[in-house]
Amino acid sequence: MKNIERNVYLSNVEVEEALHTFLEKVMGINKEDSLEDIEVINSLGRITGKAVFAKYSSPNYNAAAMDGIAIEARKTYGATEAHPIKLKLNEDFIYIDTGDPIVHPYNAVIMIEDVININKETIQIISAAAPWQHIRPIGEDIVANEMIIPSHHQIRPIDIGALLSGGITSIKVFKKPKVAIIPTGTEIIEPGQKMEVGSIIESNSRVFEGLVYELGGQPNRYLPIPDDYDLLKAKLLEAVMENDIVIINAGSSAGREDYTSSLIKELGEVLIHGIATKPGKPTILGIIKDKPVIGIPGYPVSGFFVFETFVQPLINSFLGQKEERVKEVEAIIAKRIVSSLQYKEFVRIKLGKVGDRLIATPLSRGAGVTMSLVRADGTLVIPQNSEGVEAGEKVKIKLLKDMEQIENTLVSIGSHDLIMDIISNRMQKSYDKHFLSSAHVGSMGGIMALKRGETHIAPIHLLDTNTGEYNISYAKRYLPNEKLALIKGVKRIQGFMVPKGNPKDIKDFKDLTRKDIIFVNRQRGAGTRILVDYQLEKFGINGDEIVGYDREMTTHMAVAAAITSGTADVGVGVYSAAKAMDLDFIPIGEEHYDFLILVEYLENELTNAFLEVIRFQDFKEELLTMGGYGVEGIGDIIYIE
Amino acid sequence: MKNIERNVYLSNVEVEEALHTFLEKVMGINKEDSLEDIEVINSLGRITGKAVFAKYSSPNYNAAAMDGIAIEARKTYGATEAHPIKLKLNEDFIYIDTGDPIVHPYNAVIMIEDVININKETIQIISAAAPWQHIRPIGEDIVANEMIIPSHHQIRPIDIGALLSGGITSIKVFKKPKVAIIPTGTEIIEPGQKMEVGSIIESNSRVFEGLVYELGGQPNRYLPIPDDYDLLKAKLLEAVMENDIVIINAGSSAGREDYTSSLIKELGEVLIHGIATKPGKPTILGIIKDKPVIGIPGYPVSGFFVFETFVQPLINSFLGQKEERVKEVEAIIAKRIVSSLQYKEFVRIKLGKVGDRLIATPLSRGAGVTMSLVRADGTLVIPQNSEGVEAGEKVKIKLLKDMEQIENTLVSIGSHDLIMDIISNRMQKSYDKHFLSSAHVGSMGGIMALKRGETHIAPIHLLDTNTGEYNISYAKRYLPNEKLALIKGVKRIQGFMVPKGNPKDIKDFKDLTRKDIIFVNRQRGAGTRILVDYQLEKFGINGDEIVGYDREMTTHMAVAAAITSGTADVGVGVYSAAKAMDLDFIPIGEEHYDFLILVEYLENELTNAFLEVIRFQDFKEELLTMGGYGVEGIGDIIYIE
Repeated sequence: MKNIERNVYLSNVEVEEALHTFLEKVMGINKEDSLEDIEVINSLGRITGKAVFAKYSSPNYNAAAMDGIAIEARKTYGATEAHPIKLKLNEDFIYIDTGDPIVHPYNAVIMIEDVININKETIQIISAAAPWQHIRPIGEDIVANEMIIPSHHQIRPIDIGALLSGGITSIKVFKKPKVAIIPTGTEIIEPGQKMEVGSIIESNSRVFEGLVYELGGQPNRYLPIPDDYDLLKAKLLEAVMENDIVIINAGSSAGREDYTSSLIKELGEVLIHGIATKPGKPTILGIIKDKPVIGIPGYPVSGFFVFETFVQPLINSFLGQKEERVKEVEAIIAKRIVSSLQYKEFVRIKLGKVGDRLIATPLSRGAGVTMSLVRADGTLVIPQNSEGVEAGEKVKIKLLKDMEQIENTLVSIGSHDLIMDIISNRMQKSYDKHFLSSAHVGSMGGIMALKRGETHIAPIHLLDTNTGEYNISYAKRYLPNEKLALIKGVKRIQGFMVPKGNPKDIKDFKDLTRKDIIFVNRQRGAGTRILVDYQLEKFGINGDEIVGYDREMTTHMAVAAAITSGTADVGVGVYSAAKAMDLDFIPIGEEHYDFLILVEYLENELTNAFLEVIRFQDFKEELLTMGGYGVEGIGDIIYIE
Repeated sequence: MKNIERNVYLSNVEVEEALHTFLEKVMGINKEDSLEDIEVINSLGRITGKAVFAKYSSPNYNAAAMDGIAIEARKTYGATEAHPIKLKLNEDFIYIDTGDPIVHPYNAVIMIEDVININKETIQIISAAAPWQHIRPIGEDIVANEMIIPSHHQIRPIDIGALLSGGITSIKVFKKPKVAIIPTGTEIIEPGQKMEVGSIIESNSRVFEGLVYELGGQPNRYLPIPDDYDLLKAKLLEAVMENDIVIINAGSSAGREDYTSSLIKELGEVLIHGIATKPGKPTILGIIKDKPVIGIPGYPVSGFFVFETFVQPLINSFLGQKEERVKEVEAIIAKRIVSSLQYKEFVRIKLGKVGDRLIATPLSRGAGVTMSLVRADGTLVIPQNSEGVEAGEKVKIKLLKDMEQIENTLVSIGSHDLIMDIISNRMQKSYDKHFLSSAHVGSMGGIMALKRGETHIAPIHLLDTNTGEYNISYAKRYLPNEKLALIKGVKRIQGFMVPKGNPKDIKDFKDLTRKDIIFVNRQRGAGTRILVDYQLEKFGINGDEIVGYDREMTTHMAVAAAITSGTADVGVGVYSAAKAMDLDFIPIGEEHYDFLILVEYLENELTNAFLEVIRFQDFKEELLTMGGYGVEGIGDIIYIE
C-alpha cells in the first residue's frame, strides 16, 4: 500500500462558485464535434442540435379528405332536393377514398353519404359542392422547407411523426455524453455477494447509472476497485480515455484511503477539494486529459446531492440543455432545524396537506440514510449564511414528487407499527391510489403534531397509569378544545424481545437490573416507553439501575435490530418486530394501538380510503396471519366528547 | 381483391361508454401471470407488483460515521483543555475510517480533527466523548423486514439504491404489455422510399411506438401490409399470438378498403365500430382470441387521440396503473369554436400568457394536421352535448406542455414570414431558453389580436394606400387608445412567384386576367392581399376577372406550394418563400415587415430576448445570406404617439 498523506483539512468553497469554476473550465476545453446523425425512428427523447426543416410537403399532392366522389364543382351548381343533378361515372365523377390524389379536372369531393346511387353508372346529388371542398391541399399539414422542430428540442413521439411526414429520415442530435462511474473501496461488495461485518453493498453506482440515464447520458459503470493506488490509477486512465465525464465514488473524504485527490493531482489537476455543502463536503472537482473528473463522497445522500449539484449541470451542458428550474412550493416547517453557517445544507422533507396548510416535516438528516431520499417529497435548501429555520416558519421546498400525489396523501404522525407499512401499501395499490405518509415520533409526538395541525391522524398507544386504560384520557388532557374521534386500531401484544432461545434467561423487569444484561430503550414520549416506565415503577426500579436505559431507539424494529446485532440483550416491543427479526418474545401485556383524528377530517376522501383498507376482511386476515394482533372492532369510530 | 361491403354507416357510441365496455371485457379475460422477476439493477422505470421488504439492515453492523479513533466513552470522561487525557494505541483506542465496524469494547468515535498526536503510540484528547457518538447504529438507514417501497410504485434511481442496500437483488414487477402495431394501406411507403403522387409516408406507427414505449409497454411494429384481405388476416393472427394488445392502423374508416372490421368480425368479435369523437370516429374496438384489438383511423391526429383515449388506459391497466389525472389550466378562448352535438371534440390549443391572462388560441382542427399536435400546448375537450364555445369564454385546457415553458413564451399573432421560424429557433437555442409561439392570421388579424389583449407582438406589413407608407397609420387607426410602439423588422421584397423559367411569361398584374393563367390568392386582412388589391385597383382590374382570385392561402409558403404542385400558375409572396420552393421570382416592390407592440410589454423579459436575437449581427447576416431582406434599422423602436 502506497503511503498517502491524510488530507485532514479540506477547503470550503461556496457551492455556486465551485460550480461556476468547474463548468467554465470544462466548457472552455475544445471538444470534438458534439452532434451526431441518427435515424428519426430511433430519436425518441434525444435533443436536436439543429432546427429541422421539412424536405417534402405533407400531403405532397391534393388529396381526398373523405371517402366519396371527385367531381368538378361547376357541374354541381344548382343541385337541390327539388332539382337533383345526375352525374355519370368516369365522365362526370370517379369514386375516391380518403387520401387518394385529386387529379385534373376534378376540384371538389362529395362525401359518399351524400351520394344517391341510381344505377352502376349513374348517381344523383341534391346539393352543390364548393370548389376545393373535402380536399386536403398540398402542404395542409407541412409545407416543404418549413421548420418542423427547432434546435435544442427534446424529441417526442408526435415529433417523430411530423419529421417522417416531412420526408426527414435522419437528424442531428447532441451526442449522449458517456459517463464513467467507478465505485471504489475495499469494503464494498456487489449485490448478492455474501454479507460480512464491515461489508457494504455497493449501490451508489447503480443510483448514478439511473440518474445519468434519465438525464439523457450514457452511463458506463466499471467494476468496483479496491483501495489500491495503482489499480485505481490504471482504471482512472482507462475511464478518462473511454468517456466524456468520469465519476469516482467514495475515497473522496479525508480518510486514510483517500487516493482520489492524490491520483487526480498526479494525472491532471484538482480544481477544488472541499465544498461548503452538507451533506457532500469532501467533493473533488478535477480535470484529467481535458476530461472532467468528479470525486463523489461515499454516503448515499451525499452522493445524490453532489450528483445533482455538479454532475447534472455538466451532463445538461453537454446536451445543450440549461438547468430546468425545479418546481418550488411554500410550506410551513413543522420542526426547528439548526444549521451551520459554514455550509449550504440540503434537508429532505416530507410534505403533507393538512387542512389548507402545506406542512414540511424534516426527515433524517444523516448522510447515510438513503430511505430519507426514498421517502422525501422535497428538499429544503438552507443557505450557507443561515443558522437554520424556526418551527412555524414559511419555507420554500423544491419538489421531488408531484404536488398531486402529495395532496393525495393521508398524513400520519405518531407511534410506529408495522401495520402502517401494510396500510400504506394497500392504499397505494387500490384503484384510486391514495398515499399514506407515516412519520414515527412516538405517541406523544403524534398528539403534539395533531395539536399543531400538522397531521391528519396520530397513531397512539398511551397507557393511563391511573386507570390502566388507553388513549382517550390523553386525548382529552392534551387536546381539550378540539372535537376529536378515535378510530379503533389493533390490540397488540407488547413483550420482551430477546435473542433466540433466551440465552440470558430473562423473565421479568427485575432481570433488567442484572449487571450482565444490556437493555435498549425507546425514546421519551413513545407509548412503549411509558409502558416500560410504568412497569419499572411498579417493580420499584430506577432507570439508573439498568445498563442501556439511556440508549433510545425510535422504532420497535430498531430495538429488535440492536438485539439481533448483539449490542443489547433485551428490549421491549411488539410481537411483529420480534418475529420479523427472528427473536424470541416474552409477552408483558396487550395494548390498544388506535388512531386519533379531528372530527373534521373524518369525512375526508383520504380518511375514507384509510378506513376502507383497515375494515377490509382481507387486511384483518393478513394481520391475524402475522400474529401478535387482535383485530376486533378495527375501524370503529369513538367520538370523544 | 375480396369484395368487402362498404360500411357507410358506423355507430356513434359515447366515448366513456365505449371505453368502459372495452376495458370491462378485456380485464374480464383470464390472463397469464402479469408479474415477472427482474434484477433490481435493471428495474429503472418499472412498476412494482408487490411491496418490497428489506432482507438486511443497512448498515448491518455498528459503523464509524467519521474518520478518527474508536474508544470506550468512559475512558474519556473528564477530559478538558486544562486536563487533557492521554490514550494509547491498541490499548485505549484504534484508528478507524468512516464505515469501519465498531467492535467490542469500543462504543464511541472521536473525529480525527479532535485528536492531538503525541507520538506514534500516544494521542491526547481535550474533551469527553458521549457513548455512541459518531456511530451509525445497525439499521440506521434500513431495518431488516421494513418496507422499502410499496406495490404499484414506479422505480426511481434512488429506489434502486435503497433496494440494493436492503439486500434485495431481484423484485417482482408488472410485465411490460407487448403491443403489436400493424400499419396498413397500399398507398403507404416507408420513410426514405421514393415519393410519388398518392404515396403517403408511414409515420403513425412510429408515433405509436414512442407512445407505447413512454407508457412502459413493449412496442412491436410490423412491416406495413397492403390492402389485401388474406395478407392482413395472416398478419393479424400472427400479431394476436405474439402480443398482449394489437393496434391496426388505417383501414378503419368506412371506405372501400375497410377490411379491418370484417377481419375482426371473422376472427373474433367487434365490440364497437364508430365512436362519438372528433377526430377519431371510425375507431374499432374488438377482441380476437382473448386479446384486445384496436382499429385506429389513419389520420395522424385521429390516431393520436384514439391512442390516448383507448390504448393508453389499456396499457395502464396491464401495468396496474390508474390513469394520471392530466393537469388542467383555465384559459380564455380567443376565437369562437363551433362544434357538433354529435361528437366529443378534441381541439388542439396554443396557450400564451399575455399580461395576467392565459389565452387559448385554437390550432388547425384538421385530422390530418400533425403539426397542430407538434405545436399544441394543450387540448380543449368540447363535450358531446355542446355546440362549442364563444370567444372570450373561460375554458379548461388539458396541458401537453409544462406551464413554465408556456409562461416563458413570447406570443406573436399576425403576418407570417420565414424569419419568425429563425427567431423562434434562436430564442430557444439561447442559454436562457425562451420560446416564441407564432400564429399566422395575417396583419389585420394580428392588430385585432393585439386589441383583444391576446398577443404580445403583432408582425404586420400594412400598406397605407393613401400615403404609400407602412404600418403606423393602421396602428393609430385601429388602436387609438393604446400606447403603442413599432419594433422595426425587415424590409422584404414582394413579387410574383412563378414556376422555374416563368413558362407562362408573367410580367405584371395585367397578365393575371389572362384565361390561361390560374392565380392563387392570400386571405383577406393579409398584408400581401392588401398589396395585391392596391395594385389591382391601380391597374383597374376587378378580382372577378382573375381565375383563382377566391382561392385563399394563409401563408407565403402555402401559396408557393400551390404553384410548385401545379394547381396554380402564379401568386404573390416574398422572395424567401419562392427560393425555398425553388420558384422564379419577379419583384413588385419592397415592404416593411415590423412588429407592433404595446409599450407596456417593451420592458418584458421575453421582449428583451426577442430584441436580443433580432439585433444580433449573426442573425442579420443569416438574413442577408438568405436574400430578399433588408436589415437596416432592425430592432429599432419607434414610439407611436
